[in-house]
Amino acid sequence: MLRLGPIAAAARRLPAGPRPGPLCLAGSRGSFARSWPPAGDRGPLFRQVRAAAAAAAGGERVRVLKTPKGTRDHPPAQTALRDRLLSAVVSCFKRHGAAAIDTPVLELRETLMGKYGEDTKLIYELQDQGGELLALRYDLTVPFARYLAMNKVTNMKRYHVAKVYRRDNPATTRGRYREFYQCDFDIAGQFDPMIPDAECLKILHEILSDLQLGDFIIKVNDRRILNGVFAVCGVPESKFIPACSTVDKLDKVPWEEVRSEMVGEKGLSPEAADRIGEYVQLHGGLDLVERLLQDPKLSQNKLAKEGLGDMKLLFEYLTLFGITEKISFDLSLARGLDYYTGVIFEAVLLHQENEHVEEAVSVGSVAGGGRYDGLVGMFDPKGRKVPCVGVSIGIERIFSILEQRLEAEMLYKKDPKLLKQLQYCEDTGIPLAAIVGEQELADGVVKLRDVATREQVDIPREKLIDEIRRRLEP
Amino acid sequence: MLRLGPIAAAARRLPAGPRPGPLCLAGSRGSFARSWPPAGDRGPLFRQVRAAAAAAAGGERVRVLKTPKGTRDHPPAQTALRDRLLSAVVSCFKRHGAAAIDTPVLELRETLMGKYGEDTKLIYELQDQGGELLALRYDLTVPFARYLAMNKVTNMKRYHVAKVYRRDNPATTRGRYREFYQCDFDIAGQFDPMIPDAECLKILHEILSDLQLGDFIIKVNDRRILNGVFAVCGVPESKFIPACSTVDKLDKVPWEEVRSEMVGEKGLSPEAADRIGEYVQLHGGLDLVERLLQDPKLSQNKLAKEGLGDMKLLFEYLTLFGITEKISFDLSLARGLDYYTGVIFEAVLLHQENEHVEEAVSVGSVAGGGRYDGLVGMFDPKGRKVPCVGVSIGIERIFSILEQRLEAEMLYKKDPKLLKQLQYCEDTGIPLAAIVGEQELADGVVKLRDVATREQVDIPREKLIDEIRRRLEP
Repeated sequence: MLRLGPIAAAARRLPAGPRPGPLCLAGSRGSFARSWPPAGDRGPLFRQVRAAAAAAAGGERVRVLKTPKGTRDHPPAQTALRDRLLSAVVSCFKRHGAAAIDTPVLELRETLMGKYGEDTKLIYELQDQGGELLALRYDLTVPFARYLAMNKVTNMKRYHVAKVYRRDNPATTRGRYREFYQCDFDIAGQFDPMIPDAECLKILHEILSDLQLGDFIIKVNDRRILNGVFAVCGVPESKFIPACSTVDKLDKVPWEEVRSEMVGEKGLSPEAADRIGEYVQLHGGLDLVERLLQDPKLSQNKLAKEGLGDMKLLFEYLTLFGITEKISFDLSLARGLDYYTGVIFEAVLLHQENEHVEEAVSVGSVAGGGRYDGLVGMFDPKGRKVPCVGVSIGIERIFSILEQRLEAEMLYKKDPKLLKQLQYCEDTGIPLAAIVGEQELADGVVKLRDVATREQVDIPREKLIDEIRRRLEP
Repeated sequence: MLRLGPIAAAARRLPAGPRPGPLCLAGSRGSFARSWPPAGDRGPLFRQVRAAAAAAAGGERVRVLKTPKGTRDHPPAQTALRDRLLSAVVSCFKRHGAAAIDTPVLELRETLMGKYGEDTKLIYELQDQGGELLALRYDLTVPFARYLAMNKVTNMKRYHVAKVYRRDNPATTRGRYREFYQCDFDIAGQFDPMIPDAECLKILHEILSDLQLGDFIIKVNDRRILNGVFAVCGVPESKFIPACSTVDKLDKVPWEEVRSEMVGEKGLSPEAADRIGEYVQLHGGLDLVERLLQDPKLSQNKLAKEGLGDMKLLFEYLTLFGITEKISFDLSLARGLDYYTGVIFEAVLLHQENEHVEEAVSVGSVAGGGRYDGLVGMFDPKGRKVPCVGVSIGIERIFSILEQRLEAEMLYKKDPKLLKQLQYCEDTGIPLAAIVGEQELADGVVKLRDVATREQVDIPREKLIDEIRRRLEP
């Protein structure tokens, strides 16, 4: 018995269709469709229409049958899973009082330029077909800031679930696509310090707990603390942003590499880099905040002091929310985007549950966010600012994990015993099991077992589809 | 009293926010925000970040603050309305056994070329930034056909609700945008004739009835009947498609204009045009189908006979469904798209209910669809066909109608009596009414009325916002 899962599982999770049953197997996997007779030709008009269309297309049939690089279709089972996932996230956003808005996928190029630092090169631009110069949105934050400024909204709690586009190097096994969903929750407006920031972290904690993705940690830091660290370590102000993006790599590469990039590529002095190293390798909780507030150098820096004061206040709120256990004040967290001005944070899954799957999906960070108090002002004609803080849930990465967990039913287990598999079929109501052992391979047959009656019969491979269809007929 | 509606109504449909109440008024209209103090400057880091970003953007603040031509933002009230509308449509699709799929907004250009006839020029193309040549999807039908062929699915009932993109001339008052939602339901696979086609019409009937948009009619025709008409009227086969797109204009312009386009632009003989005119101005029910089946010329044409036979069968199913009252067999219906091969249909609202609104939105056709048996074969490497039929709901146009109906609460009525308005506030639980008459205008005040207690007090205009906020505070 080589693989039992696929057929049985596919039969259980059939997409809805005009006739329930095996007719839809092809929909979920496509493996049976090849042997089906092609649909009959309905007459000369088809040929005419196709010929006309083929002529318009340059006389040839479509040669490349695929979706664009880094994008994918979602078949019904995936779409249903994704919709459940999104609705869990949205219901948390709503519980926290946010209202949905929608903005176009297209934005004026001008709107997006100068907001993403080095990543600006990853923006998809539309061809100039006359009229305005357009681009596809890169995230939901910049369109939100544009929306606030355009509508002169100074106060809003909103969520937005939609696709964004990045000409990034796709890594689809890690849930990294060029077209992907983001689920954003943001609070715009002037409020008492750190209350909205704490709510964003609370929401993130609720969502990751609800989804039962396994253990996670939420790293927090503050751009002002980072900038203060750079300042007291002797980095010139013009190099704060490049230094930031280098520090951000500390979760993937060891300090030595980060240090050599700082000195080599970013032009920092070795002494400055060493001093930075002493700070950015620190992580802890409220105790670390308190300690740094006493740090003789850092406490003299106005920005760092502001940031540390707010961090202390944030931890007080997080204590009230009862979630500090999952929060790590981590000085290496920097986040790539230019627009952050205060608190920043990022959620990371600590390990994969991989009892059921052979290879764990490595997904890294699954959510992030922070405070961006200057972005709306960049859009307002008079530069009026609206302080904002928000969190973005990386739903595709979470989806990859859940999807693989779903696949676990398909793959079952490494080297599972036959009886255990059949027991599983009985327990879960799978009606048919197809068994292919060495003997069946040699005979060109498949053993088909009626799970309920335990009757088994050898079926020639070419008749398997028909037989399964017949047996599953209502 | 000039306008009571806006403030009162806005207060009732506040988007959720960190503090419920007037803080969000700006979100729905933006009219109050201007007088609010701008958010305070939080220190030097803001200036630094903004300066860095402004420098990256070319040293200037964003100059054009708008969404691209033909697109729009949806603020919370609109998004909520749209979500309710979409979920009504989706629940009908699900009731009929369809499963959702999702495909990328981006498709290879090659996938879209040669599918839309003259409208191909309306496709948004992406700039060549290296790699594949891409375009934004123009509808959901061609991506569905690509999906079926790519996954070798020969049998599926699916729905898909998503945005599509057309570089069309936007007419936003009529609900015509360049980015808009489509709600598609399609049945792929070989079935007994006209059953899937009848189900599409049944679904369309259910949705339009459920949404209570007023009286509607669903026009049906068949491409084979049209082609048969052209053939027996002496039109050469090469001119069928151009003739089709001219006939399609009969719902907007009189026959004389259509005739002169046929003869002038499309090069048909005057005699052929006159003969066509006798057919395409006919509309009716089953009786007309029967009559044409007896038509001495048309009954001799193989395609027309096939089409009329299927139309008769379709009417039998529609009779069983009890919906023939809303169906009109209309020989002028042609539909623009190239890919239709059999039955085509289009739903039109007969008149606007405009008791509550001053100007009715003119929306025209609100849904359409048809049979396209050749499209999947254009994608399949071996040309294998999968017969398909589907319906697409023009949700944006329906949305325009519902939105204007919602606005009716804002605009209330032309020249409404004050007492009636106050009564309306009491009946519907609006807490505050702002009254501005000639005296108030002269005094620079607004009369604020507590609807429940009927207490009224004059408030200086510059204090109005604060006062409303204070009173609505929880």
